Formats: sequence, structure tokens, C-alpha cells
Amino acid sequence: MFKEITIIGPGLIGASLALAIRSKKICNKIIGIDSSKKNLDDAINRNIIDEARKDIDARISSSSIIFICTPVSSIDNIIKKISYFSNKNQIITDVGSVKNIFSKRTLSNNGLRYSLVPGHPIAGTEHSGARNAEIDLFKNKWCILTPYKKRSKSVKIISKIYKKIGMKVSVMSTLEHDKIMSITSHLPHLIAFTIVGTAFNLNIKKKNELINFSAGGFKDFTRIGSSDPKMWTDIFIKNKKYLMKTLELFLKDIEVIKRDIKNNKVEEIFNLLKRTKKIRKSILEKGI
Amino acid sequence: MFKEITIIGPGLIGASLALAIRSKKICNKIIGIDSSKKNLDDAINRNIIDEARKDIDARISSSSIIFICTPVSSIDNIIKKISYFSNKNQIITDVGSVKNIFSKRTLSNNGLRYSLVPGHPIAGTEHSGARNAEIDLFKNKWCILTPYKKRSKSVKIISKIYKKIGMKVSVMSTLEHDKIMSITSHLPHLIAFTIVGTAFNLNIKKKNELINFSAGGFKDFTRIGSSDPKMWTDIFIKNKKYLMKTLELFLKDIEVIKRDIKNNKVEEIFNLLKRTKKIRKSILEKGI
Repeated sequence: MFKEITIIGPGLIGASLALAIRSKKICNKIIGIDSSKKNLDDAINRNIIDEARKDIDARISSSSIIFICTPVSSIDNIIKKISYFSNKNQIITDVGSVKNIFSKRTLSNNGLRYSLVPGHPIAGTEHSGARNAEIDLFKNKWCILTPYKKRSKSVKIISKIYKKIGMKVSVMSTLEHDKIMSITSHLPHLIAFTIVGTAFNLNIKKKNELINFSAGGFKDFTRIGSSDPKMWTDIFIKNKKYLMKTLELFLKDIEVIKRDIKNNKVEEIFNLLKRTKKIRKSILEKGI
Repeated sequence: MFKEITIIGPGLIGASLALAIRSKKICNKIIGIDSSKKNLDDAINRNIIDEARKDIDARISSSSIIFICTPVSSIDNIIKKISYFSNKNQIITDVGSVKNIFSKRTLSNNGLRYSLVPGHPIAGTEHSGARNAEIDLFKNKWCILTPYKKRSKSVKIISKIYKKIGMKVSVMSTLEHDKIMSITSHLPHLIAFTIVGTAFNLNIKKKNELINFSAGGFKDFTRIGSSDPKMWTDIFIKNKKYLMKTLELFLKDIEVIKRDIKNNKVEEIFNLLKRTKKIRKSILEKGI
């Protein structure tokens, strides 16, 4: 039981985290910091946070743990601001979808001005903001931690909190995380965002009815592709290295099936699709 | 109320159709024809069909309506077989996901040896076979009919049946249908099938755990990508023309966002993603 936890950016993830933390009685008081007054109002009105602040200031030194739940491009700079007021006993953790994002300065202060435990609870919906927060958002999902000091007390604490709110925890390197996310999340989102635009530019009479004529497929893609634009712009830029590599591999694979279709290579296509079904089966059996 | 209806290929779609038709008391007797004994057994055991046959023969002349629910590459040939026994009062309809698939011979017999009403009830799951049939599969979904004689009595009958089992019906040309499907269904499936293979070829330590680290995104893709390989091979080949055109447009759009990411064009990416969100909103508001 902690006295106080601060959530910087109590949006969909941050506010859901606050709800889950409160329900599990992990701390007494939750502070929310956000530059958006509207989001802070939502969080206060839904009783998600106990106190709302616009800025990071000296008061942050009373929080045992600080969760940074902003778009990834802001995280490093926020840590810099916190570091003026923090001490080495305070844990700073984040929830960003890209993990190789920390400056040398931030890493060199780790253990001196704060204890840094980078994290990524893999959960979310296509909605955003505190008004869409869900208490059960994290239940039975996975959380990846990418600590620089794997056996530290701070890692144990953050891991315990995520387990307490129903998550399974996996520890890996930042690079392994960013590689995995490039295929399981970032490329699918890139494709989904793109295909909705492609559909809209097609020369089709019944364009506004497109969504009706979709069983799964396109409908799933539009849902994925309606996620928060700012958050995803940041992710695409910050994980550029692995996202571009994975995209290139995907485009090569697309070229193969494209050529097979063009040349009516029925057997080759069938074998490709059959293999996919097998892979899925093996992933499902081993994975979950 | 019809005396008899034949379902050729009582798989997921055909058997679900039989269940829905029976529950709405649209006919007295349902015949199932399939080359797979196992699937026929499943259909008989689940009481989906009243009689199972291996072949198309003279007995088919007693059915008022014949639904062809096989992979699209077989449909035209099946109509040829039926035509030896059928008469102009019998309606032949299909449920194929590609509609520009009929030979000149098939079209020239329309109105003489049978009345052809090509159709596509847009429904399905990633599962196949009579054992996975669902009575409510078609409820509140759309069915597209692409008749060559739009105002015929047969079109009215087929349209009425689909409405009776809960579908909304839209009539359009075969080409318009195939163009729409290329973006709402065929390209999303092509991408989903491909990306699972790409994931499997990645150099990742925790490959078998990939699916765990996926909230939406990849998980949705693997589900879509585990659909029936034979059915989808046929669809890709049969709708080659529009699928390839749509794929080219998509790849052009991917090149644009790829270039923007490579060059850190934050504003351009943000605007692209924001537009997608808007398009989805407008599609959802107007469409459903």
C-alpha cells in the first residue's frame, strides 16, 4: 500500500490504470497531471483521480511511483522535468508502445535521481481519454517490462502492481520489445490506417455503404485504424527502425503472393494460405 | 413455402443457410449435395439437411431453388451439370464472394434451362464446415444480388428469402460487387494471410509468444488469416483483376506513409492518420 501515486496523462491507459490501482487498494491517493483541462475534469468527475494538476512541480516528490502515460514523444522530456524534484527512491515508469526512447541523460540519472522501470502494458481500445477508461482494461493481458537493472527492487514493485491488477508480466530488452511490437501492433496499425484511405479514394459508386459490405476484414481494419492519431504518429516515428525493417519484409511477402496470383499459381497460393492457417494454429496452441 | 430446396456444398455458409431456411419454415425438405462424406454426415447428424447426396443427378429437378455454396472456382461447372436436368422454372443462385465468374454458356442458358440469380450473402467466420454452422450467421448482415435480369420474379423470390432470414438486400452489377469486395474483403484477407507468414519469418526469440504481445492488431489479423485456404485461393484468382488494381493503390499509399516516416514528417503522418479517423466516422455515420 503506497501513500501516493501520480499518473501523468490520465488518458485511456492512464485513467484505466488509476481505476484498477484504486480498486485493488494499491495506494491512498492518486494525482493526475495533464495539460488538457477537459481530460482532468473527466478524470475528476468520474472519481478516477483524487487531485488534478496542470504542471509537474515540487509536489511530485511525495509520490512513491510516477506512471507516465503520455504519447511516446513526450516521455523523455517529462522525465527530465520530474528529475528536478525527484529522489532516487521514487520509481518512474511509463506505458509507451516503443521502449528504445530514452536519452543518455535520462539513463545516466537512473538510480541517482529516480529509479526507472520502462513498461508497456499491452492493452487498449480504439477510444481515448479518461472518459473511456475501463477498470478491467488490463485483466489477463500481458505487460512487458524492459528494465536496465533487471533485478532491482523497483522492477519487483512495478511487476507486482501489474500482476495485482490482473496482468501477466514478461521482462525483455528494449530492442526485443520494439522488434516484437513492430509486427504485432505497429505494422498492423500502419496497414489499417492506410487501407481506410485507399478505400476512400476508390472509384466506387456506393462508397458510403462500403462498411455494410464488409464481414470482418475491412470492418476490423477501420476499427484498428481509428485509434488516436497523435499517439500513433509518435509510435511510427519512434519505432521507425524496426517498423521499416518489418514493413520491408512484409512488402517482399506481398510481392510473392501478388506474382503468384498474377500468374494463376493456384497450388503455390493454396500452400501459402494453408501454411498461415498452420502457423496460427501452432501460435495459438503454444502461445496462450 | 417451397416443397424442396437443394444446397450444393452445405459447408459453413450452406449449412447455416439451411438452418436459417428451416427455422423460418421456407421449405419442407432440404437436400444437401457434397463430395465430402464427412461434411454430409455432419450436416445429417446436426439435422441440418433431410437428405444427403454425393452427386448431382436427375433428382435435382424436384427442387424449386438450388443454392450453390461451394468455392467459387467450381460454381460455373456445377451449373453446367445441373443444366442437364433442370428446367426454366428452377432458380439457381450461388453465394460466391466473386460475381463475375459465369461463362458465356452459363449466361446463355439463363432463362432457358434455369433462372440464374447470382448472390453473395456477406457473412462468415474463420471456421468452416457444417459442424460450425450457425443459425444466426446472416442476421442483420447484407446480401448483394447481381442479377442479369433485375426485375425478374426469381430475383424477388431470392431477395425475399434473404430478407426472411434477417438480411438486408442490395442489388448491383457484378463489376461493382467485385470492385467493392476487393477492398472490403479480398485485400484485407490477402494482407492478413501474408502478415502471419511475415511474423513467422522474423528473427525474434519469443516467436511462439508473439500472439500474447498483441492487443488487437496482429490478433485480429491472424483470425482473419486463418480462413479456409481453398476458398480464398479461388477468390484471389477469380477476382484477380480488381484485387490487383486495389492492391496497387494500397501499395502506393503505403509508399507515401513509408516515405513520410523515413523523413520524420510528423505533421504529414498526423494529418494522414487524422483523415482516416474522420473517414471512419463519416462511413459509420452514413453507412449503418
